[in-house]
Amino acid sequence: MTDYKFSENLLNVRMSPIVSISEEVRKLAPEFKSRTGKEFVLFQRGEIDFPTPNYIVEAAKKALDKGLTKYPKSGGEDVFKEAIINKLGYFNNATGFDNDNIVCTYGGQESLELSFKLFEGKKGVGFAPCWSCVLENFVPYCGTDFHQVPLGDDFSIDYDRLDKALEGASFFYLNTPQNPTGKLFTKEEVTAVVELCAKHNAFLISDEAYEAVLFDGEKHFSPTSLEYENIISTFTLSKTFSMTGWRLGYLVTRNKQIPKLLKLGNYTQTAGVTTFLQYAAAEALNNKEESRKAINAMVTEYEKRRDLFYEGLASIEGLGVTKPKGGFYFFPDFSNFIPQNISGEERKLYIYKLLLNEGVASVYGSCFGNYFDDYIRFSFSTTPVESIKEGLERIKRICE
Amino acid sequence: MTDYKFSENLLNVRMSPIVSISEEVRKLAPEFKSRTGKEFVLFQRGEIDFPTPNYIVEAAKKALDKGLTKYPKSGGEDVFKEAIINKLGYFNNATGFDNDNIVCTYGGQESLELSFKLFEGKKGVGFAPCWSCVLENFVPYCGTDFHQVPLGDDFSIDYDRLDKALEGASFFYLNTPQNPTGKLFTKEEVTAVVELCAKHNAFLISDEAYEAVLFDGEKHFSPTSLEYENIISTFTLSKTFSMTGWRLGYLVTRNKQIPKLLKLGNYTQTAGVTTFLQYAAAEALNNKEESRKAINAMVTEYEKRRDLFYEGLASIEGLGVTKPKGGFYFFPDFSNFIPQNISGEERKLYIYKLLLNEGVASVYGSCFGNYFDDYIRFSFSTTPVESIKEGLERIKRICE
Repeated sequence: MTDYKFSENLLNVRMSPIVSISEEVRKLAPEFKSRTGKEFVLFQRGEIDFPTPNYIVEAAKKALDKGLTKYPKSGGEDVFKEAIINKLGYFNNATGFDNDNIVCTYGGQESLELSFKLFEGKKGVGFAPCWSCVLENFVPYCGTDFHQVPLGDDFSIDYDRLDKALEGASFFYLNTPQNPTGKLFTKEEVTAVVELCAKHNAFLISDEAYEAVLFDGEKHFSPTSLEYENIISTFTLSKTFSMTGWRLGYLVTRNKQIPKLLKLGNYTQTAGVTTFLQYAAAEALNNKEESRKAINAMVTEYEKRRDLFYEGLASIEGLGVTKPKGGFYFFPDFSNFIPQNISGEERKLYIYKLLLNEGVASVYGSCFGNYFDDYIRFSFSTTPVESIKEGLERIKRICE
Repeated sequence: MTDYKFSENLLNVRMSPIVSISEEVRKLAPEFKSRTGKEFVLFQRGEIDFPTPNYIVEAAKKALDKGLTKYPKSGGEDVFKEAIINKLGYFNNATGFDNDNIVCTYGGQESLELSFKLFEGKKGVGFAPCWSCVLENFVPYCGTDFHQVPLGDDFSIDYDRLDKALEGASFFYLNTPQNPTGKLFTKEEVTAVVELCAKHNAFLISDEAYEAVLFDGEKHFSPTSLEYENIISTFTLSKTFSMTGWRLGYLVTRNKQIPKLLKLGNYTQTAGVTTFLQYAAAEALNNKEESRKAINAMVTEYEKRRDLFYEGLASIEGLGVTKPKGGFYFFPDFSNFIPQNISGEERKLYIYKLLLNEGVASVYGSCFGNYFDDYIRFSFSTTPVESIKEGLERIKRICE
């Protein structure tokens, strides 16, 4: 009985390495402190250290006071969907949608999981490096035959390679701005990717979680503003409004069959998104003035951290570092600091372990696919300026 | 492109007939009103017409004010899990659990969906009649090979038939108190079912959504109080605390491998349950005094409705009616009122359509499996006493 063989797809899902890294750090921290008198610097997490803006909290309380505690409408409340259509217009320059183009979900997570589920067992393609959750969760859960197309050293697209990989694929997964690189795909790049999808009759699953976390005055270009019918754009309120724990997101597509199917998927999994929280979500999106204020405050702080972090990393000779345009991650190349005779698992963890020994928590590159073993992801989403400074000192130490 | 073949499992999921019935009623209601001057009587819904008790609403607001808006802990917050263990003890007489035995989910719905997912593509067995969502959602979504064992006319168990059906099955699905019959399975019945599961090395998926909606001083017997390791009991706060729109539930099992897998499933689907709402859920379960008051008020009202409804239905000669011990449904047998020469789809909808014509919305028996086509489900969860009286008059009219 104990060796009952449960669902293969469930058995193949893996715990995020970030969870194990955080656990490892919790264990190492006391020893590190007693050895050095200092705290660990935490660059591993994708959490956010801002509170949820008060106008959204108040909207949730108001909806509770109104007794909006009955079963949600299948696929999402009209008030949330109308706010989404409004936001798609003013923020994404994407028009022509009505409520039937939208499914409200538990975060971008459920939007992505349902989108992958649409193509259960089929071939999918995505760039490497790739958000770890795709590789560890969605791909095994949905039995996806997932192929990775590596970005170049400067995170540029090899269109020939992408073209070949899309042969026979059901979908392409695009994440812009991208975790872990901070790359913001330009309008030209997004358009070219969509054209290749159209050429191969492939759907595009677009993950736009970091759409509001942009630096240097950059603008996010959403593929969903394009005419191609078979794009599923997934969004979340988590990063935009510091609402990671609220679990509110949505997907949008011009293909009207998909919301019909995915609202049934959402219903089957959860019976819909918490009713009164959808009213708070609507207020989050509709109140443009408060929304802009909240996003500006967040981005200003992140940009300060990014600039400081970039300056420090760029000063390390031999380190390959690209300045992120969006998101809150650096993904530098440490290959010049790894002895050439090291390979396999040892190589994958080499820099990560050196950093741990110096009291720096990070995520090793192999978590993000097959092609970036020598890279390390540093998140600055919860790391204040002082800790970044301290972290940089320690990173420099292992590069000497 | 338009004929792309999406996931078979998703394509097979069906919209609840209750949704289509409600839509049909919305269309018919104006014509009915202009013809008779009266409103439709709504017996089709499983919604609840009580507000969520104030102490739970306040707990949610307090958690929001505390800023508990960060990512939830994988599998559920400790505070919610500890409250669940507390409640399992005082309410279900089930002990010996710790946090590793529990996964917090979006309602009983996600607990059940994940449990069915464990046995993807395998043989499962359940009693007929069976909650429609199992047949329309979980079974196709998880590719279950689902076999139905009919209860008798008095909703008793045919153990020989159950024993045979369990041959080669991976699990049995039990719902107690049962939707749509209102049957409360006794300790002896539950124990006998568990013994048969053990004999066949089958798991038990136990759906205890209505555990607190009990009449005549009856007590719910939870299989999870038994020692058998391979029971997954699923619970929800929806019916107990009028929290259908909050989407809060949990599963409990003595088998420690299952929570490990299902918390990964929950993470993959949604990244966990809304953090601050888990604090409200903990308060809902921990505050025994407020909880008891809320449940008593609800049950007192439901019992009044049930008694009135039962009296009326029992007075109809030729109608087979069983008095529900729990839940908020009647499931009477109308076979004496259906002409013998009618069969197939026409038969399935015969009484339902007569009722519609009289301004009564109900759910036809074939929604609940293969064996109860001549039955009709009436819900009294949102129907006040005056409407039940009016509804009874109309039901009597078609039985004359």
